[in-house]
Amino acid sequence: MFDLLNKIVNENKKYIKNGHVATYIPALAEVDENQLGVAIVDLRDCNCKEYFAGDYNKSFAIESTSKVIALIMAMMDNSPQYVFRKIGVEPSGFAFNSILNMKINNKPYPSNPFINAGAIIVNSLIMGKNSNEKTNRILEFTRKLTNNPNIHVIEDIYLSEKRTGDINRSLAYYMKGHGLIDNVEDVLDCYFRQCSISVTAIDLARIGAILANKGVSPFTGEMIIPRDICTIVKSIMVTCGLYDESGDFAVHIGIPAKSGVGGGILATVPNKMGIGVFGPSLDAMGNSVAGVKILQQLSNELVLDIFD
Amino acid sequence: MFDLLNKIVNENKKYIKNGHVATYIPALAEVDENQLGVAIVDLRDCNCKEYFAGDYNKSFAIESTSKVIALIMAMMDNSPQYVFRKIGVEPSGFAFNSILNMKINNKPYPSNPFINAGAIIVNSLIMGKNSNEKTNRILEFTRKLTNNPNIHVIEDIYLSEKRTGDINRSLAYYMKGHGLIDNVEDVLDCYFRQCSISVTAIDLARIGAILANKGVSPFTGEMIIPRDICTIVKSIMVTCGLYDESGDFAVHIGIPAKSGVGGGILATVPNKMGIGVFGPSLDAMGNSVAGVKILQQLSNELVLDIFD
Amino acid sequence: MFDLLNKIVNENKKYIKNGHVATYIPALAEVDENQLGVAIVDLRDCNCKEYFAGDYNKSFAIESTSKVIALIMAMMDNSPQYVFRKIGVEPSGFAFNSILNMKINNKPYPSNPFINAGAIIVNSLIMGKNSNEKTNRILEFTRKLTNNPNIHVIEDIYLSEKRTGDINRSLAYYMKGHGLIDNVEDVLDCYFRQCSISVTAIDLARIGAILANKGVSPFTGEMIIPRDICTIVKSIMVTCGLYDESGDFAVHIGIPAKSGVGGGILATVPNKMGIGVFGPSLDAMGNSVAGVKILQQLSNELVLDIFD
Amino acid sequence: MFDLLNKIVNENKKYIKNGHVATYIPALAEVDENQLGVAIVDLRDCNCKEYFAGDYNKSFAIESTSKVIALIMAMMDNSPQYVFRKIGVEPSGFAFNSILNMKINNKPYPSNPFINAGAIIVNSLIMGKNSNEKTNRILEFTRKLTNNPNIHVIEDIYLSEKRTGDINRSLAYYMKGHGLIDNVEDVLDCYFRQCSISVTAIDLARIGAILANKGVSPFTGEMIIPRDICTIVKSIMVTCGLYDESGDFAVHIGIPAKSGVGGGILATVPNKMGIGVFGPSLDAMGNSVAGVKILQQLSNELVLDIFD
Repeated sequence: MFDLLNKIVNENKKYIKNGHVATYIPALAEVDENQLGVAIVDLRDCNCKEYFAGDYNKSFAIESTSKVIALIMAMMDNSPQYVFRKIGVEPSGFAFNSILNMKINNKPYPSNPFINAGAIIVNSLIMGKNSNEKTNRILEFTRKLTNNPNIHVIEDIYLSEKRTGDINRSLAYYMKGHGLIDNVEDVLDCYFRQCSISVTAIDLARIGAILANKGVSPFTGEMIIPRDICTIVKSIMVTCGLYDESGDFAVHIGIPAKSGVGGGILATVPNKMGIGVFGPSLDAMGNSVAGVKILQQLSNELVLDIFD
Repeated sequence: MFDLLNKIVNENKKYIKNGHVATYIPALAEVDENQLGVAIVDLRDCNCKEYFAGDYNKSFAIESTSKVIALIMAMMDNSPQYVFRKIGVEPSGFAFNSILNMKINNKPYPSNPFINAGAIIVNSLIMGKNSNEKTNRILEFTRKLTNNPNIHVIEDIYLSEKRTGDINRSLAYYMKGHGLIDNVEDVLDCYFRQCSISVTAIDLARIGAILANKGVSPFTGEMIIPRDICTIVKSIMVTCGLYDESGDFAVHIGIPAKSGVGGGILATVPNKMGIGVFGPSLDAMGNSVAGVKILQQLSNELVLDIFD
Repeated sequence: MFDLLNKIVNENKKYIKNGHVATYIPALAEVDENQLGVAIVDLRDCNCKEYFAGDYNKSFAIESTSKVIALIMAMMDNSPQYVFRKIGVEPSGFAFNSILNMKINNKPYPSNPFINAGAIIVNSLIMGKNSNEKTNRILEFTRKLTNNPNIHVIEDIYLSEKRTGDINRSLAYYMKGHGLIDNVEDVLDCYFRQCSISVTAIDLARIGAILANKGVSPFTGEMIIPRDICTIVKSIMVTCGLYDESGDFAVHIGIPAKSGVGGGILATVPNKMGIGVFGPSLDAMGNSVAGVKILQQLSNELVLDIFD
Repeated sequence: MFDLLNKIVNENKKYIKNGHVATYIPALAEVDENQLGVAIVDLRDCNCKEYFAGDYNKSFAIESTSKVIALIMAMMDNSPQYVFRKIGVEPSGFAFNSILNMKINNKPYPSNPFINAGAIIVNSLIMGKNSNEKTNRILEFTRKLTNNPNIHVIEDIYLSEKRTGDINRSLAYYMKGHGLIDNVEDVLDCYFRQCSISVTAIDLARIGAILANKGVSPFTGEMIIPRDICTIVKSIMVTCGLYDESGDFAVHIGIPAKSGVGGGILATVPNKMGIGVFGPSLDAMGNSVAGVKILQQLSNELVLDIFD
């Protein structure tokens, strides 16, 4: 498996040049776009081995991939039923930060938890009396999911997000104006921190492995996420996980996944494995250009497509 | 299993009153809305048994469920690559017959093959020199998939569709104006016939079973659909199969499925079974109201959710 | 005045190169784009003199400028009240042939009589048992307005419009599907003929003079159009007359006007004069690029802005 | 004239019950909705007499009618050319506070200065180092236009607007995110104050009279507004002055006007008169329901329609 991953990383480096790092905040624009790495936590081995290659242990900003963690917490803190009275679960057919999602469809709430408007609502549903307390809970939970005590907020990403987050601020005030959230600035502060958490491909693979394993840690046997919540999250990853490339990803790769503009992709193959990919060069849709190719090759070579 | 299906049909009859038969064409409005039936072709039995209950052998108009068959044929007649240069595969976030899908997103082609605009394109890609020849090929292929020689076009449904199909005509001329199709009236004639094919819940279950079985007929062992085409179709059923209820269906039921306003739902559980449901009372989204409930209960009781 | 018009035509020829003739139908693409002419029927003279310069007597296709004539006839054949129960009078903020106008604003009818959808409705409200009879009535009325017995349908423009009119056909079927019109093909046939009527700048100036003169022919003293209908038409020319350039035209020129992609602009200055312009080189919005400049200079030099 | 105005006020009181006061902010909801008044400053008299009837001297919040004053100031502080490089002048076809205006039409700036997004930009173009200084300049200018030294910001309206202005805040951050404004909170603070200025029907009539008189005060003979700016403002009042009722108002009344949800309407008949109306009961579009009727009757009885 190590050989396979090394081969795949090398073979897909050529796609890096088809994309670019995110530039909407200065802190992301400085990232070295030639990085590429992958990690797998394989549930099919009896002792659940971890495999990896390339820049699998380089840190990067989690960005939208954090929406998976926040959604799990919001559902655990309340209940899935409660959360889905506040947001929808339909794919939206619009760009990820568009304010049109609610307006044009005359919906009383954002289409799904993975567009920015929905993710801001989800953040507001996480328990905690303010941004600090909520951020600490998100960090604690992410450390538990990744078994990595070093999980932290990358300060300059957070400040950069906060300083330039006017479209998110616009979304948040629009939703406040429609009675969907309160305390806009506090919710956004926590949302910007949530997006600025530092992770590695290994971290994402471990989260994917827990989701694949119905919520049970493959290392400790502890139930970390209720099974029904894992199922829900995986289904939304398929319908909405890769922005406006979700349908294409489902057709050609067929693995529940969630990307982030930091270059990470968290993938989870039910009952088989968690996969983390890191490649900060992004395609036009905002997904890791070489990362998507790596997942496609993995899906083919290891026969992972859940629709097969 | 027969007992289970009988129980489930009886328990879900109470939901019939929450919906109504489709009324947009007279021929559909006359259907008895109290019908409810289910059929399963179970691949897990060594001899692939069929189970059923209720109105499993009542005929009804296939309507949008035919989009699955047409998409398979268009991909087999050409290639998946060719088809997806003509239409997208992204869920659209708009009502199923809306002309907005292309316009508002500034896309050069319809969002996916299961909205009407996309399905009209798909029909135009089926081989055949005119509507008659294409319709005969669709009927032949459907008879093969269902092992039912009685498959035919329901004449009064077809005439009703044709007489009242102005929104589809509007979509078709819009696409002609943008160079996407030719011969509008001939393509529409075939499209209206395709939607008017008579099927039963058993027929749908058998088609679902072939898709679940990677394209191989569980009865004859014959490869009827290439495996990669089956995989593609199942993925699109998840992201786009139930109109604007697709995301909700994925979250709560987790089975690839395609509904039709005739009241049918074709469902397919990879490597496990094909399911056909018939219940003409529809919810606000155009899906069988009791049929969706039956699939939800089946998913829970038989543990069929592919995201679990 | 002749000197002024000659000077203005010469000074504005330089703008011709900033535009192009319409190319959406072959018959328009062949027009010589260097033509430029203007005509004025001046009501301020006691004997109502006509002035002109340049290509003032060259024939061209009336195109959208015919929407003014059709609207007058529809109101005269029925009543303004009746007509405005079938269409709105609000500027739409969308491109002139967009099907979005109704859909996105959730309106039961087209926004105004000068977008294509509205103009198709207007045509359907003109009395006559079929396209032939209606076309003859439109021609008769146009001959009366222009005092020009040579007014006729330009056959190759009509056939070109008809052959390539799929977007209009799409609009018409959409409206049929919503119960707004019947006999789509007959209405469209008449609509395409209406758009293909041959006129000159002089013809347009004479129509403008009648509108400016509250409906009374300045030559014969005959009341040809009821005064209230003239007032309504002039107001809609200001809010909707130049497609998505209407607001800009109102701000900078301030004269009720209606353009056509044949290069004509019909302008009418209440109680002062009618103006006809012909210049087939169009700007990005579909208005005569040099024609708009001529009207701007006339408005300044003769102090014609109604908002001044 | 006094008799006519009294008659008209009395005859149109019956329409009050067809509407309701604005309720989006508490301070407006408390206004007595039975008030109705009108004032005219008539330029046709040699001594420019003022006429009035009903609640012509009751104070109310100017709300959107302030957009006229702000637009004049922005053009005087900069130039019309400069202002219209920052905003458009096309009617938008969308509800007045909709964020869709820019997004859906893919415009780089708001459609026109009378929708909220455009009016926020306009406010940002008024000279002054902060909200206080700008507010003082707006008050000074309004006092000059109205010859009323009592013009002031109604504190509880301002605080109410500010506390509940989340949709405007959303618009402003959206525009900041697209580089159109800076200092969102300072601009909004001034915008909320601008909307909270206290005026009477007489005040509005006086402003209308100056616009009608090409910018020259009919009382002092002083040129207060450049003539070209008056012309521009009057044209935009026709195309965009009454929200989504502008086209209808142009057709049936034909007078440049700008309404506000406080119940005021400022109308200006070029070279004839300024009219102020106050009636806080609003129709569905947000315009004074009886006020519109009063203007319609005045237009008919005094023959004021500029399109006639």
